[in-house]
Amino acid sequence: MLLSELIQRRDKIRDIMFKEGIDAALIATNVNLIYTFGQVVSGYLYLPLQAPARLFVKRPASLSGEHILPIRKPEQLPELLAQCGLPMPKRLMLEGDELSFNEYQRLSACFPGTEVLACGSRIIRQARSVKTLWEIETFRRSAQAHAVAYSHIPQLFQEGMTDLQLSIEVERAMRQQGCLGIFRVFGQSMEIFMGSLLTGDNAQEASPYDFALGGKGVDGSIPGGACGHTMQRGESVMVDMGGNFYGYMCDMSRVYSVGKLPQRAYDAHQCCLDIQQEVAEAAKPGVPCEELYQLAADRVEKAGFADCFMGTKQQAKFIGHGIGLEINEAPVLAPRIKQELEPGMVFALEPKIVLPGVGPVGIENSWVVTADGVEKLTSAPEEIIDLLG
Amino acid sequence: MLLSELIQRRDKIRDIMFKEGIDAALIATNVNLIYTFGQVVSGYLYLPLQAPARLFVKRPASLSGEHILPIRKPEQLPELLAQCGLPMPKRLMLEGDELSFNEYQRLSACFPGTEVLACGSRIIRQARSVKTLWEIETFRRSAQAHAVAYSHIPQLFQEGMTDLQLSIEVERAMRQQGCLGIFRVFGQSMEIFMGSLLTGDNAQEASPYDFALGGKGVDGSIPGGACGHTMQRGESVMVDMGGNFYGYMCDMSRVYSVGKLPQRAYDAHQCCLDIQQEVAEAAKPGVPCEELYQLAADRVEKAGFADCFMGTKQQAKFIGHGIGLEINEAPVLAPRIKQELEPGMVFALEPKIVLPGVGPVGIENSWVVTADGVEKLTSAPEEIIDLLG
Repeated sequence: MLLSELIQRRDKIRDIMFKEGIDAALIATNVNLIYTFGQVVSGYLYLPLQAPARLFVKRPASLSGEHILPIRKPEQLPELLAQCGLPMPKRLMLEGDELSFNEYQRLSACFPGTEVLACGSRIIRQARSVKTLWEIETFRRSAQAHAVAYSHIPQLFQEGMTDLQLSIEVERAMRQQGCLGIFRVFGQSMEIFMGSLLTGDNAQEASPYDFALGGKGVDGSIPGGACGHTMQRGESVMVDMGGNFYGYMCDMSRVYSVGKLPQRAYDAHQCCLDIQQEVAEAAKPGVPCEELYQLAADRVEKAGFADCFMGTKQQAKFIGHGIGLEINEAPVLAPRIKQELEPGMVFALEPKIVLPGVGPVGIENSWVVTADGVEKLTSAPEEIIDLLG
Repeated sequence: MLLSELIQRRDKIRDIMFKEGIDAALIATNVNLIYTFGQVVSGYLYLPLQAPARLFVKRPASLSGEHILPIRKPEQLPELLAQCGLPMPKRLMLEGDELSFNEYQRLSACFPGTEVLACGSRIIRQARSVKTLWEIETFRRSAQAHAVAYSHIPQLFQEGMTDLQLSIEVERAMRQQGCLGIFRVFGQSMEIFMGSLLTGDNAQEASPYDFALGGKGVDGSIPGGACGHTMQRGESVMVDMGGNFYGYMCDMSRVYSVGKLPQRAYDAHQCCLDIQQEVAEAAKPGVPCEELYQLAADRVEKAGFADCFMGTKQQAKFIGHGIGLEINEAPVLAPRIKQELEPGMVFALEPKIVLPGVGPVGIENSWVVTADGVEKLTSAPEEIIDLLG
């Protein structure tokens, strides 16, 4: 990755630090090291407001370059900063939502005269929520690969398959297109393998997470997704895999059917496509997220699908979420979220309806906010595709 | 899962809590909820020393049963405990190595009159390090499925494949045998997809993690494993996939070759098998981990492979690690680890050597400590299998 790209990102973080009177950040978690250094290392990126960033690296030990210094343990930080001619910070931010309590305490103790603040995660997430041109371009490449992988799905299906068997074939198709497999999530509560494939009533199974659609999964240790159900004629199938091809979590769902579905399923699907269109037409810089949610809620109410919108037994209260290095970034398109869209934000919009006895329908695409609207990144047919047809 | 199994586990934790004068635990992270409740939920398991555990659950909201109560936010805990007739704890432990700093602070603030201790992760890990009979049986089932998946590897290879292409086929074979895919790791620094497949000199590439063998991977955002190298005649291939079939991380590596390898590779492989045998013969309850490491180090030194044992450019300083719900549990077979083996511990033993120009050789099996020795769980041929033969 070009240094200029990394510097641009670091400066986005610095801008917010400056506004909040913070003079340095110590970045220690993988996702924020990828963001500010371009790759995972074991170590710390020290980001002062007024001087170039320094990487203090444990492993790989072979890593070297300007402003890269070896470190064995964080207690060396004061001495290493002095070696770099950098003063101890007055107000230092750490990643309070991401570092473990014990690790935070250990790092904090390395800066005895410093006011240590836990707002690092929030501030870096804010910086990350508006993507650089390079990041948007990377999303475009991911979206293309994601669409190619999905284009193989009709050929992967065989009648009599279980949802899990089809999921395994889709996972392989994703990997063959270059998907890295890893599904990065903010916070430690949600664990997901590569994504989910939901058929029939399994889509109604409530998740422990704040998901639109859950799925029982095959083991209580990793709930969600396919459950081993043999796919039946008249059931719908929703494929929602994480499109992490180059580090960025592109998000895209498409619906398939085993033979013909009841008319109500096509109506519900069309309702989701209409919501998508209405929200996409309204979305532009300056629009608060809650307004976009309300548009969707009003339309689904009018269409008579409110009781099965975003789940049945447990309904998720959002219609979209920011995406980036993690699947759940800012902004969130949900009630009471007054945050306004900004050019460069990238989000997934996923109006979905679950019909008992049939399964999930709806759509999910990834979108980038432009100067005066939004642009769809994930281009692929949006109608329900009959796997028997 | 049977309640008796869960009660046995909770009592193992209580035993240690009692010794350390702790009268309650609040368990909030997935892995420890799986351990103490049998499945992932969004919520808290409250474990008092002297009363049955209570589950306070946010999601799935449908979950109900004896001692299961709904909760919206942790601030309700004091009121809910009072409803249950439970006193506020005097000394409460939280998962200090696993909860984020901000989440820990929030939970801690819910217990204003209580001494809150960050030792929960350590104590639960200690309890988890000695497996129940049910857990050992689950490991046996995982080990069998793991071996079946590996038995297909020779048929999956085609000359001219890249290491990544073969990795994708092995991942699919693992999934087809029931592998859940998710690779659970203690601590948030290590992120791994399903495991690794390393060919030729890629095995020398240093990892940011404390791994025996790294691999470059295909993207800096998820280092490790296959790199897209076309596998060449005369190169070895090590398959090291996480065998998570039922929630437990069975660990097993096997070596394959593309045609014949130089004699030195077979010698190095035999050296690893000899180390495995020597360590397995010496391992029994009461033996300190460091002694087992030393046996391996001495033998590899005599055999002349010390400079390429457990890596070349970066050498890992361990030969084995506990396994369980996570891939990196206690005990660790490493220098200066005085912890003694106990019956019921399960660990992976992985003496490995990397030969420049050839690739990785060696072995990894999962073992359970019995009353008077150790027993191998992962049974499969251990010689280098020629993929062309």
